[in-house]
Amino acid sequence: MKNYIVVSSDCHAGLRPEEYRSYLDPKYRETFDIALPIQIEQTRVAAKRFLVDDINEEWRAGNERGITGAWDHDARNEVLDGDGIAAEVIYPDGITEMNAPPFGAGISLPTAGVDAELQWAGARAHNRWLAEFVAKQPDRRVGVAILPALWDVDESIREVRWAKENGLKGLMLPAQWGDLAPYHHPKYHPLWEAIQDQEMVMHFHSGPAPTSDYFGDLMDPDAENLPGAVGIYVSEVCWFAARPLTFLIWGGAFELFPRLKVGITEGTVVWAPPYLELLDHRYAQTRESQKLGDYTSHLSMSPSEYFNRNVMLGASCLSRHEALMRDQIGVGNLMWGSDYPHPEGTWPITRQQMHTSLEGLPTKDIEAILGGNAIRFYDLDVAKLMPHAERVGPARGSFAESDA
Amino acid sequence: MKNYIVVSSDCHAGLRPEEYRSYLDPKYRETFDIALPIQIEQTRVAAKRFLVDDINEEWRAGNERGITGAWDHDARNEVLDGDGIAAEVIYPDGITEMNAPPFGAGISLPTAGVDAELQWAGARAHNRWLAEFVAKQPDRRVGVAILPALWDVDESIREVRWAKENGLKGLMLPAQWGDLAPYHHPKYHPLWEAIQDQEMVMHFHSGPAPTSDYFGDLMDPDAENLPGAVGIYVSEVCWFAARPLTFLIWGGAFELFPRLKVGITEGTVVWAPPYLELLDHRYAQTRESQKLGDYTSHLSMSPSEYFNRNVMLGASCLSRHEALMRDQIGVGNLMWGSDYPHPEGTWPITRQQMHTSLEGLPTKDIEAILGGNAIRFYDLDVAKLMPHAERVGPARGSFAESDA
Repeated sequence: MKNYIVVSSDCHAGLRPEEYRSYLDPKYRETFDIALPIQIEQTRVAAKRFLVDDINEEWRAGNERGITGAWDHDARNEVLDGDGIAAEVIYPDGITEMNAPPFGAGISLPTAGVDAELQWAGARAHNRWLAEFVAKQPDRRVGVAILPALWDVDESIREVRWAKENGLKGLMLPAQWGDLAPYHHPKYHPLWEAIQDQEMVMHFHSGPAPTSDYFGDLMDPDAENLPGAVGIYVSEVCWFAARPLTFLIWGGAFELFPRLKVGITEGTVVWAPPYLELLDHRYAQTRESQKLGDYTSHLSMSPSEYFNRNVMLGASCLSRHEALMRDQIGVGNLMWGSDYPHPEGTWPITRQQMHTSLEGLPTKDIEAILGGNAIRFYDLDVAKLMPHAERVGPARGSFAESDA
Repeated sequence: MKNYIVVSSDCHAGLRPEEYRSYLDPKYRETFDIALPIQIEQTRVAAKRFLVDDINEEWRAGNERGITGAWDHDARNEVLDGDGIAAEVIYPDGITEMNAPPFGAGISLPTAGVDAELQWAGARAHNRWLAEFVAKQPDRRVGVAILPALWDVDESIREVRWAKENGLKGLMLPAQWGDLAPYHHPKYHPLWEAIQDQEMVMHFHSGPAPTSDYFGDLMDPDAENLPGAVGIYVSEVCWFAARPLTFLIWGGAFELFPRLKVGITEGTVVWAPPYLELLDHRYAQTRESQKLGDYTSHLSMSPSEYFNRNVMLGASCLSRHEALMRDQIGVGNLMWGSDYPHPEGTWPITRQQMHTSLEGLPTKDIEAILGGNAIRFYDLDVAKLMPHAERVGPARGSFAESDA
């Protein structure tokens, strides 16, 4: 092969809000018609506090065609080609503040102020559309279904099966649980079992965080941000994306379901070495922690061993600094991602950023991080990826590889 | 000097629950009499889930006299002497599951299910007792007043002044705020100003965490722990102890009040280097974060610069591993602590643990970590500490110092 196979572990797609109507179960369409203008207005108000309109509009200027790839088949393939990407993992919320699924079924999957039945309806509408979107180009698109798993485990298991049958390979679960049961609760064991048996990958995607702590009421059109609110958000959000892992590890999910695969996406990766070190330290039954009681006898492996076996990090916009930490994290646990079409992503200067991050690394590490790890994690068909990689992928030898 | 001056940055003291009665404002004593048996029973029930009775009883066996140092003047001085400690910083909750102040005024300072007026009354009862306890041996005791700062800023400022006038040098604020305003809110600015002007040190002490996530209802006598619950608690609790710092830094507290001193205690210190790195990275206005809006123009220094100037870590039971990280954290930002009389602390094998942790370091680093940093942070009188250090402190030269 002359080129690397690049798989973006973090991309987003979604319909414009009004277009979800036809994908909704008909019995929810009347409610949808009432909710739609409210959703649009709330999104607009929140975006004023959280995404700066003029900067984002400037960034989008000249890229209008590429932006429509958030929902348009041809435009999306053009963007992937331009970025050198053979295949991508697709989460919801295409354009951050514009096209989330209805009824609170977007990335944040809140549990407060939403109706469980409606959130499920919104998630299914997106999943139906996503299954069609993936089916148009199944060799390049790994679809992640939205799974509001907190409300009802049986319903979640049915959706896992539906997603599998309809060509989706991943699931996105809520990273925050509000007053519902966190992920060490045994009630979820049948769900983990189903996900393992269906050979699906479950994910937690960065974004959800206790925003009311930072911003107060984001829906208040008259409020202004408290000083530093956005700084606090960008400092804490990666912790909240990884938080479910702590509950899964200690709760024994990977002990009971050794083939369960979990992806943590777009949460940076700098937290991983000290995080694993702390958990291993606690696992080592130090003199201090013994006094708090037994919390390790149900685990046969250390937290970092579960991590290395069961977890993959979606390293969106992997920085140079993070690439140099690869051995501390585990070079086999990192998947590069572009985060297209989000403004914080690498598009439209993906190739340049990719080179900046990975320049001078050994070929095998570049290969693993850019695509090899994702190919293994998602069980992708290399034969189908190769033609795309050979056509658009970055050339082997173009990274001043240390072994070249 | 032949010995090091040791200051423990983390010790605890408190009365037996019934003895707080006489320190309470009389108008709350009737309520106290009703609440006392409930508090004792709830503490007993929660401790079954959270501290293993038999292990803790085994640990206490033979140390009965030392344990009474949680409230007894002479017994406490004997323990300090035995541990080689010249002076100590004193937080509430002497014996973890036995003597917390009344009305939810202990380490956790919860905001839900408590009455603000009563929590204040409980805090003041403890602060009055603590002022007496410190006055018996002011050269060795640095008292930390309980400050339920979330409810009312004016009332908090009055308590800061009372604490200062009554010989206390520190304040412990709630590390969690529930539905009340977090610490980036400008409403707290007058409080930060008062704390700075009174030359007091404010603290957040490890312990509070969203325990209902881990344990469900700790007060339910029939419930058992979910698998790994304690593991999750010990993995997350240090993050929650440091969390207020994120709000203070980004909110501009150290920009507006450059002499404001903040201690983060017993939260381990392993989190500090990656934490500061992440905040500095966000501060550097990367291409990604610009799109989210301005959150840095009100700050003239980077997060790690504020940290180095304004923050000190109470490194309770400092491990060898943490001692070897001292340059990454800042050797001037670490204060050793024994956590006496908590079961997870170093007592009664403090001297041995101290040597294990610090063996082979340069003299100046041992000096700084064991006491020098605390002396500076709390503005302690070295002349008054020296006689105690010369009598009981660990000998210079006994750590196989690298420069000896």
